[in-house]
Amino acid sequence: MNINGKHYRTIWIKEGDERIIQIIDQRGLPHQFIIEDLKSVDDVATAIKDMHIRGAGLIGATAGYGMYIAALEAPHNEFDSFIKNTAEKLKSTRPTAVNLAWAVNRILSAINHPSDSNNYNPEEKIKIALKTANDIADEDAEYCKRIGEHGLKIIKKLSKKKNGEPVNILTHCNAGWLAFVDYGSATAPIYAAHDAGIKVHVWVDETRPRSQGAKLTAWELLNHGVPHHVIADNVGGHLMQHGMVDMCIVGTDRTTYTGDVANKIGTYLKALAAKANKVPFYVALPSSTFDWKMRDGVTEIPIEERGSEEVTYMDGLHQGVVERVLVTP
Amino acid sequence: MNINGKHYRTIWIKEGDERIIQIIDQRGLPHQFIIEDLKSVDDVATAIKDMHIRGAGLIGATAGYGMYIAALEAPHNEFDSFIKNTAEKLKSTRPTAVNLAWAVNRILSAINHPSDSNNYNPEEKIKIALKTANDIADEDAEYCKRIGEHGLKIIKKLSKKKNGEPVNILTHCNAGWLAFVDYGSATAPIYAAHDAGIKVHVWVDETRPRSQGAKLTAWELLNHGVPHHVIADNVGGHLMQHGMVDMCIVGTDRTTYTGDVANKIGTYLKALAAKANKVPFYVALPSSTFDWKMRDGVTEIPIEERGSEEVTYMDGLHQGVVERVLVTP
Repeated sequence: MNINGKHYRTIWIKEGDERIIQIIDQRGLPHQFIIEDLKSVDDVATAIKDMHIRGAGLIGATAGYGMYIAALEAPHNEFDSFIKNTAEKLKSTRPTAVNLAWAVNRILSAINHPSDSNNYNPEEKIKIALKTANDIADEDAEYCKRIGEHGLKIIKKLSKKKNGEPVNILTHCNAGWLAFVDYGSATAPIYAAHDAGIKVHVWVDETRPRSQGAKLTAWELLNHGVPHHVIADNVGGHLMQHGMVDMCIVGTDRTTYTGDVANKIGTYLKALAAKANKVPFYVALPSSTFDWKMRDGVTEIPIEERGSEEVTYMDGLHQGVVERVLVTP
Repeated sequence: MNINGKHYRTIWIKEGDERIIQIIDQRGLPHQFIIEDLKSVDDVATAIKDMHIRGAGLIGATAGYGMYIAALEAPHNEFDSFIKNTAEKLKSTRPTAVNLAWAVNRILSAINHPSDSNNYNPEEKIKIALKTANDIADEDAEYCKRIGEHGLKIIKKLSKKKNGEPVNILTHCNAGWLAFVDYGSATAPIYAAHDAGIKVHVWVDETRPRSQGAKLTAWELLNHGVPHHVIADNVGGHLMQHGMVDMCIVGTDRTTYTGDVANKIGTYLKALAAKANKVPFYVALPSSTFDWKMRDGVTEIPIEERGSEEVTYMDGLHQGVVERVLVTP
């Protein structure tokens, strides 16, 4: 999507140097827009592990390009063992991210010729790794784009009822293009509608404790020019009670085959309020987030518990510097 | 309630100098515990207006003592006009606080002898103002104490079912003793239960945007020794889904005669989650918060809208100093 009028993806090959991958280092957002060069497997591993990038789709794409860089780095006389070790190293950076292992394995099988006796040479493998990494990124963007096309129809319908007033859409957390290669999942229909000239306005849940709404979704919408307000997580129910929300749309971390959705903490409260106030509530997802082995979301989906400092501290800009302040003892 | 083992109210007459009122300056909490002397009507007006103190009950009590200080300050030759002007001045500090005008008017009528011809002299009026201000404070504490006694019965019942495990109570915002003279409304049953030796554990909603839960309720509970966790506002529904909340209790800003409650933003979301998960949800209130003229809370109760900087900024402690950081542009 656009940043100050220029189109970006979250990951790309550096112009003029095919051996370098570039990403947006998301740790500085929304206060600092930093483009980072990934020149080595170590750079890629750090970027995934220390969350310079995050989000299922983007983690997968980054791992794909990481394997391409591994192929560039690999000594020709021990190419295969180097690649194998790198694959394990990359997979261990965020062990719970399903897309990570999937992307690494996809590159591994692509560079191995179906017939053992007729294997590709290192130069061929580098080319195949690059092409496959590009495919992974392109497919991720394409799937999100298609989510946008499906969602666009829904927003169009709502827009007709609004007689020229904007469609008010509430979203929680960041299921935006920063979590994928482009478009995002929950945001894809919003961008599609905005780009099609439909008036939309987004209520962006702050999404404590890590504030991905306030920091990432708001930054995305601001840069793409979509009208929005950041709201405290407490506000959505009140807005729905007063007819100020036309639809909710969120992403999902995991979805059971019965349709139970596990998404960022607080999604449930908004779903309850939407139900109580007859506001349509949508979950935007690529099919890869379905877990076909699970039936009951509440009892079966494991929920990550993180450090308490995410609640007790908050970070933000103070006199031009990002600082971390203690909110409660 | 207790601070480091010593009993405090939120407002009191200074030991050894009956002409000075003392309050806890709540602006520094939870990071700084500051006791402030109020020596003049100007001090009192500033304390109310700039929110050194807040909360319906405490605003009323402070206004009462403000009128007593006015009586001390009043020149004897123009006592009545000085008092009348001060009354107007104090009433204008927080115009929407019902208890403020109520307390000021109560002092005014107390110091005016029922028979015009037999009016009290200034010295008598000072004594009456002090006694009435003390009465207002004592009654506020007494009403909260009685809320505690009623609520204690409910917690006792729940405790019996828990077989020695703590009763998990979720609360939102600060309806604690810092908002009243002592005990609080929503917190009164919690303190009563804790002091009676019943095991309780409190889930304290952070309560963005002003974080009264994280800053005030958590500080109260910490100092009184009640076990608790501060949680992001997004968390309560998940806890209820997993059986980790035995009851919710909150305060109220205004209550219609049909029982509709308007309380801090986000209370509604927790009430919906409590209903969906069959968790009992209580509102603790003194009868003064009923508005007998209103029927429908959603359409009739006016909701205060405050500045956007309360969402975009957050303040907290950084290297020993309270700083304000920008969370989102």
